[in-house]
Amino acid sequence: VWFTLKNINIILVETTHPGNIGAAARAMKTMGLESLRLVKPKIFPHADATVRAAGADDILSRAVLFDTLAEAVGDCKFVFGTSTRKRSLQCEVLGPVTAADEIRLHIENNVPVGIVFGRERTGLTNNELDLCQKMITIPTNPGFSSLNIASAVQILCYELRKNVPETDLGVADEIKESGAVEHAELNFLDPDKPRRLMRRLRQMFNRTGMDQNEYNIMRGILTAIQEKVNQK
Amino acid sequence: VWFTLKNINIILVETTHPGNIGAAARAMKTMGLESLRLVKPKIFPHADATVRAAGADDILSRAVLFDTLAEAVGDCKFVFGTSTRKRSLQCEVLGPVTAADEIRLHIENNVPVGIVFGRERTGLTNNELDLCQKMITIPTNPGFSSLNIASAVQILCYELRKNVPETDLGVADEIKESGAVEHAELNFLDPDKPRRLMRRLRQMFNRTGMDQNEYNIMRGILTAIQEKVNQK
Repeated sequence: VWFTLKNINIILVETTHPGNIGAAARAMKTMGLESLRLVKPKIFPHADATVRAAGADDILSRAVLFDTLAEAVGDCKFVFGTSTRKRSLQCEVLGPVTAADEIRLHIENNVPVGIVFGRERTGLTNNELDLCQKMITIPTNPGFSSLNIASAVQILCYELRKNVPETDLGVADEIKESGAVEHAELNFLDPDKPRRLMRRLRQMFNRTGMDQNEYNIMRGILTAIQEKVNQK
Repeated sequence: VWFTLKNINIILVETTHPGNIGAAARAMKTMGLESLRLVKPKIFPHADATVRAAGADDILSRAVLFDTLAEAVGDCKFVFGTSTRKRSLQCEVLGPVTAADEIRLHIENNVPVGIVFGRERTGLTNNELDLCQKMITIPTNPGFSSLNIASAVQILCYELRKNVPETDLGVADEIKESGAVEHAELNFLDPDKPRRLMRRLRQMFNRTGMDQNEYNIMRGILTAIQEKVNQK
């Protein structure tokens, strides 16, 4: 699954500060994304972009420029917009975790995806919003929701990478140690087809990144159910 | 729980670029954190810090300066270090999700916590690492792990905020819509004490930020268990 992250298109619309473009490229590359598209950047290329890319210059030099968002998303079968504000949007609004999971499913099915980030101050126009099937909102402090555009790119790329089980080795180790999967397998799954459910369980645990406390709660619930079964 | 995020101390050690300090302040404030401590910043205050803070100047002006990390963490009962590299560390290394959950528990118990971010190029010294009880590593692209320090602050602050159920309204809505909690309640929980387990389930769902697919998997498992119970 890993390499497919490269196929997700990050699209920046009329970015004002070239430093933000460079920082977005760096944010993408640290998480394994590679495809950057720029719709009419105010100043690009620029030294600020290169400095802030800090070694992710290859992402910048391969960035593709477009005149309109419509052209930039022309080959994307599914387009996600981003917004820090809860606008009166007609389309579905997702949180970063749900959005990352949907995007992961799209790329697993070879559906080209674009994630669109609007202008620093004014975001996306209504015409541009019409090109987005769904919106992604990163929850922020209601008193200060001024999330930097490269920070928004960083958070979404982080969530996208987190959803790739193979790379999240720390979580996989915890699952093993917690014994929660084995607990579920030994006691509750249909003995005729445990492997399929096991795989689904493992995928879910891998993707949610549950911690020790949450495993303990799950085990507590499983134990309670087991007691109920035994009472019968 | 919400206001307690303010009590988490973000500590930057010998940061070279003032712009990174400003960007870290902005990253903190967007997620509701307020306490910034600086150990011997190379240049501070500086116009670059103020510009990149983009309105989070109050965090900068209230930032407390220290000569050593030992002094900066003097009142912290629990200190988390951060590293992008998997060093040969003697202490426990956590992923961001697990770390955020542990930190949330600490602040709920009024335990003062510090999260330490090392120098841009060289990170933390061995003496500084000795002051950290646990380390946090953000999973990155093995081929390009150069995560910007303010981006690392952003990701951790994002995970910390995500763990506060009251604010993650989007996820709470999804839980309601999914019906997964009601499914669990109606069919599987001890009818004598459903409320306590319900609360724990809700907390877990809130904190993990499960998506629609994962709820569907959970519901599938619950249905399979129910069938087993009915067969008895």
